[in-house]
Amino acid sequence: MKLGSLKSPQSMDGELCVVSRDLKTAVKATQVAPSLRVALENWKQHEETLQKIYKDLNDGKATGSFAVNQNDFHSALPRTWLFADGSAFIYHIKLVRMARKAALPETLETVPLMYQGECGQFLAPTEDIPQRDFAHGTDFEGEVAVVTDFVPMGTTPDEALKYIRLFVLVNDVSLRGLIPEELAAGFGFFQSKPASALSPFAVTSDELGDALKEGRIHLPLHVKYNGEFFGKANAGAMHFHFGHLISHAAKTRNLAAGSIIGSGTVSNDKHENGSSCLAEKRMIEQIETGAIKTPFMKNGDTVEMEMFNIQGQSIFGRIFQKVKSV
Amino acid sequence: MKLGSLKSPQSMDGELCVVSRDLKTAVKATQVAPSLRVALENWKQHEETLQKIYKDLNDGKATGSFAVNQNDFHSALPRTWLFADGSAFIYHIKLVRMARKAALPETLETVPLMYQGECGQFLAPTEDIPQRDFAHGTDFEGEVAVVTDFVPMGTTPDEALKYIRLFVLVNDVSLRGLIPEELAAGFGFFQSKPASALSPFAVTSDELGDALKEGRIHLPLHVKYNGEFFGKANAGAMHFHFGHLISHAAKTRNLAAGSIIGSGTVSNDKHENGSSCLAEKRMIEQIETGAIKTPFMKNGDTVEMEMFNIQGQSIFGRIFQKVKSV
Repeated sequence: MKLGSLKSPQSMDGELCVVSRDLKTAVKATQVAPSLRVALENWKQHEETLQKIYKDLNDGKATGSFAVNQNDFHSALPRTWLFADGSAFIYHIKLVRMARKAALPETLETVPLMYQGECGQFLAPTEDIPQRDFAHGTDFEGEVAVVTDFVPMGTTPDEALKYIRLFVLVNDVSLRGLIPEELAAGFGFFQSKPASALSPFAVTSDELGDALKEGRIHLPLHVKYNGEFFGKANAGAMHFHFGHLISHAAKTRNLAAGSIIGSGTVSNDKHENGSSCLAEKRMIEQIETGAIKTPFMKNGDTVEMEMFNIQGQSIFGRIFQKVKSV
Repeated sequence: MKLGSLKSPQSMDGELCVVSRDLKTAVKATQVAPSLRVALENWKQHEETLQKIYKDLNDGKATGSFAVNQNDFHSALPRTWLFADGSAFIYHIKLVRMARKAALPETLETVPLMYQGECGQFLAPTEDIPQRDFAHGTDFEGEVAVVTDFVPMGTTPDEALKYIRLFVLVNDVSLRGLIPEELAAGFGFFQSKPASALSPFAVTSDELGDALKEGRIHLPLHVKYNGEFFGKANAGAMHFHFGHLISHAAKTRNLAAGSIIGSGTVSNDKHENGSSCLAEKRMIEQIETGAIKTPFMKNGDTVEMEMFNIQGQSIFGRIFQKVKSV
């Protein structure tokens, strides 16, 4: 099943929609729950009804269906209670720490890195990334993420996989120029992690088929930068799977229904797969040629993220964002 | 005006109530907005109506008023979109860094420290603090905080003061045993900052009278530990005022209406004022006697936080929490 949140002047949560498998048609499901955020609070009650609407929509039988224009959709979950972003791709950690001359954590392969990001107002998937100052070093980070049900504190990694309700893509906007000073002060990321965007559509596990294995999505994340190929790193390369990340987040707190747990930047050690953020490309340039060539984003630069199933169909719709000086 | 959120089986946001100045009576205001969270999204539309109800309630003229039992109230804002917790009391930073043998940040007096805390499900003000492991080093932190309206990105400190809508107290629960490893890994607090509790009532600036000066509340925060005096540190000693903290939070993002910006642990360098967290008391013991005597919280230990106006009336109601092994 695929779900989205139609932009609405009445609600910052948007209006819950069921979206067809081919992303061509949608139908409002506000009679089930006004928003995806609310639907997630009573998932067991609503899932079957939503799946029935989804079947009807794919069969061309849903009343009130309309043609999808992805620009009319907000981030799949426009706002929620927690965005806990992990860093599950070890190669990404190695490259970015090398870039800022920081040591690798001793617990690199045993304890996931995780910070809490802005979740109260995601950018829409085609909304401009506001840039106040080019010196902030605006970067994108292509990620996969899960949306959980309520998760009780102390849930183990294997149990945690059972609480995954939906999958989404994330463009985790990062301000590289602000990171060193924030991390040096000891409290972690805050200003360096402004509002991110999610993909327009969130999907249930059945949409991923065989690509979903051992808590990881084994598909490439396609990233284009200014319209050109930038990366196709496979998201299956996560060192920690989503169960580990959820369990880490839930070690000392319950997670609210609708919590988003991010993978961190999708990253492979095969350089022909490209990258999912500029910081990695810059570091690879440094390693391979001795000099960084690629600058961070400037006014007008665009980034695009999408993931396709083995039939070549877009799974989550497209994140397409342009940097805009404000 | 004083506002609260009555616990409700129907909504995790609770039901919006107006509460009398003496905290003895309350009346539901769900005809104005279902919850405080929603009221904050249209504050300018609702404030006058709520103030009218407040006047009637204090005059004994409000229809449907009832006697307040503070146990029936949730945290003033049971869940919201952002809890950005600053660390505006320099003396607290000095003591806790001394305790964990960490260097002071170079920007100690120029850039506020701030992290993003759990905001999707605050504990109720009289709810037990769940403790999974005594080795986590459970501590309380008494704080004051503001609740903001929507704040545009880039707002200056002085402008930022205009976006404050409400004031609350916070018990920012901290797990001291988990902090060193988390900070060493470089991503800041996550597991070490579980769910916190707010005071039962949030108040508008007029309730603070002359105590509100230059963006700070110049009143002592009374803290009792296991029923005994623990602290009465004055919250007016903030190095950064709330405008600085809001501006810091809004440097690279808009803040959603209902964002909570915390002061950090209220702390004075006069030791006779006591402390607002165990970590400080332990460090003062170390300095004064060469040895730490006070352990962190264990099953059954209680903490109480309250602030009184110059007439001796409780402003925000009482936070009273007990640690419970789970």
